[in-house]
Amino acid sequence: MELRGACIFGQSGGPTSVINASAYGVFKAALESGSITRVLGAAHGIKGVLNDRLYDIAQEDLKELELLKNTPSSALGSCRYKLKDASVDDTDYKRILEIFKKYDVRYFFYNGGNDSMDTCNKISKYMQSVGYECRVMGVPKTIDNDLYGTDHCPGFGSAAKYIATSCMEIYQDAYVYDTGAVTIVECMGRNAGWLTAAASLATMQGAGPDLIYLPEVAFDLEKFMADVERIWKEKGNCFVAISEGILDKDGVFIAEYGQKDVKADAFGHKQMGGAAAYLAQAVKERLGAKTRAIEFSLLQRCGAHLASKTDVEEAAWMGAEAVKAAIAGETDKMVAIERAEGEGYKPQVKLVPLTATANTEHKFPVEWITEDGAGIKEAFAAYAMPLIQGEPDYAWENGLPRFAKLKKVLVKE
Amino acid sequence: MELRGACIFGQSGGPTSVINASAYGVFKAALESGSITRVLGAAHGIKGVLNDRLYDIAQEDLKELELLKNTPSSALGSCRYKLKDASVDDTDYKRILEIFKKYDVRYFFYNGGNDSMDTCNKISKYMQSVGYECRVMGVPKTIDNDLYGTDHCPGFGSAAKYIATSCMEIYQDAYVYDTGAVTIVECMGRNAGWLTAAASLATMQGAGPDLIYLPEVAFDLEKFMADVERIWKEKGNCFVAISEGILDKDGVFIAEYGQKDVKADAFGHKQMGGAAAYLAQAVKERLGAKTRAIEFSLLQRCGAHLASKTDVEEAAWMGAEAVKAAIAGETDKMVAIERAEGEGYKPQVKLVPLTATANTEHKFPVEWITEDGAGIKEAFAAYAMPLIQGEPDYAWENGLPRFAKLKKVLVKE
Repeated sequence: MELRGACIFGQSGGPTSVINASAYGVFKAALESGSITRVLGAAHGIKGVLNDRLYDIAQEDLKELELLKNTPSSALGSCRYKLKDASVDDTDYKRILEIFKKYDVRYFFYNGGNDSMDTCNKISKYMQSVGYECRVMGVPKTIDNDLYGTDHCPGFGSAAKYIATSCMEIYQDAYVYDTGAVTIVECMGRNAGWLTAAASLATMQGAGPDLIYLPEVAFDLEKFMADVERIWKEKGNCFVAISEGILDKDGVFIAEYGQKDVKADAFGHKQMGGAAAYLAQAVKERLGAKTRAIEFSLLQRCGAHLASKTDVEEAAWMGAEAVKAAIAGETDKMVAIERAEGEGYKPQVKLVPLTATANTEHKFPVEWITEDGAGIKEAFAAYAMPLIQGEPDYAWENGLPRFAKLKKVLVKE
Repeated sequence: MELRGACIFGQSGGPTSVINASAYGVFKAALESGSITRVLGAAHGIKGVLNDRLYDIAQEDLKELELLKNTPSSALGSCRYKLKDASVDDTDYKRILEIFKKYDVRYFFYNGGNDSMDTCNKISKYMQSVGYECRVMGVPKTIDNDLYGTDHCPGFGSAAKYIATSCMEIYQDAYVYDTGAVTIVECMGRNAGWLTAAASLATMQGAGPDLIYLPEVAFDLEKFMADVERIWKEKGNCFVAISEGILDKDGVFIAEYGQKDVKADAFGHKQMGGAAAYLAQAVKERLGAKTRAIEFSLLQRCGAHLASKTDVEEAAWMGAEAVKAAIAGETDKMVAIERAEGEGYKPQVKLVPLTATANTEHKFPVEWITEDGAGIKEAFAAYAMPLIQGEPDYAWENGLPRFAKLKKVLVKE
């Protein structure tokens, strides 16, 4: 049954290279839809709804909206804002309802990872509980690839391509002297090792890490030292990839070994970083080797010049499919990707209940980790290689990136 | 007068994205030359000569040699080996002469920066002193752009493009939350600020650092704090670029503020790093701001996927010109680039005496630094923009880089 009204789209959580491609997918489909009467973009995710800061997307140039496909990060601004349970405190929900009524919002699209799907789910359930008709759809996004219910997550393929390519380039550099060195790269991934595993794609090309450690296996400093020493003695060099979130059997982050007062964010997450630096120093002291720690830091999630074209296209597609499904009557779901059976990579859309995705982490399969806990099996490459294919149509202007320039006109009632 | 004989080409010093493009230029011109009877590549620069480890380049596939143009780092291996003055100890020189005689080497091409030109110069002068006829030519290479006698140095344009593009991408990411953050990026450049200045190209696109500090101006921690605090209060965010080599008025590296036992290499250089981390911590304590330190680390010099096409082409061209000049009778010189007068960017070759280039550093012009010491004037952009133009013909294979695969067949007499 047709539901007419405005839509709000919001971006939430950590940036990726392709979150704006999903925004483009949502905007294009929504602007072209007869049912959606007005397309609004929330400034800084749900905070923009709470603060009544909504952009009128119809005011934007179509050419600039198209440039969103290759503009990294969140063009509308993002947030890390945790909604309380409505049963505990429904202040925020009442405010969101007020804004929805003010603009006759009947479609709500929220783009993010685990925490954002939690937000999306809570809003969906609240609107149901108060009988306000609004179709709520989640659009998946996270470089971490740890979102439950989808084969993979837009954002992951690009970050994986960044990591694999960068490892191959660093390999060229790290082995250039005959004096040897131990190089340790640190990848993002607080609890799930998907991104760090992408370093193994470089290894399969003969130019990647010798050792790879994910948070799914308890990290043992003594075993690590023995692994490094063995490779070092064998090859005169050693290249290691670790996840920022590796932790020992007692649950202590290796990053915390060298750093005492790590603060937690609103979701109880601690800001990681520093594990590679700690380990590089430890190896230097033990082996006397020249060591170098490299954190891929923000560029692994915002280096859009090295995005995967497959990922960019899938991100835009997921956005469009969320709109299409909502117009067709779906609600309370997240759009997701599954692989069609048969030969070759054929992605197809499926819808997953928001309740199922919210706050459920999809960890890296332990059966894809080698028995010694320091490598990745080829089954992962079969999974990941299709996701890093193709180079993006990055817009260069005078030797530098040309990102989308949005006017961001605040909507009036 | 024609001089017939073999040539040796060696790569020396820190990697760049385009040093192999120069190798390609040398190899192609040398292989096509009637005067050069055999083309040899030294394994790990001058060490390969001393150790009699020389590759027979004629054994390589031409297709693989072409791939060198977009393969970062030094495909033959590099070294940081300092030749003693021949007047103090001529052991190495005698050995080099022995190898030159063994293979009838009449052409020696050495690709590197300041220290490598010192090596090249010493060998040239020694061969003259003993009356061994050999034409010696330097081929410039350094991301630092601090080589004397050339308008700019192959390697710089690509590293500058990497830094400017990455700054623009990080800008998108760093400003995504409305909670604010201070982001500090650290660029290479031990004594010269050229690379760090490249961050200003992003600023001129409206998406770069607010503050830029080069080693050419004495760094004052209190002034820095005041600068950051001012921007932070004004914008709620602050983006800073620093050179790894910034140092205070007493000549103490800021990186050393937080790190005591920094060791020096064979040339007396200290391995830098850590200045951004130190400053980020200091800002966090002072302002209570969320801070993030990002080191561009190795990728700024080996991220060939983000090389400048202009730079790749000039690097290959310099290699070819060195061969051409030597065959025409030149020796004891470095090939260099100068800009032709008139409108537009028109690079042309010039030859510079090796004596003049060796160990002379070309610093960033202080008149291009703003009066407050925390910014770069537009005159630099006029200089640098032509050097970052164009994207390279990077070879992708199945979603990942396809680098040159050399056979590296050791030559027999």
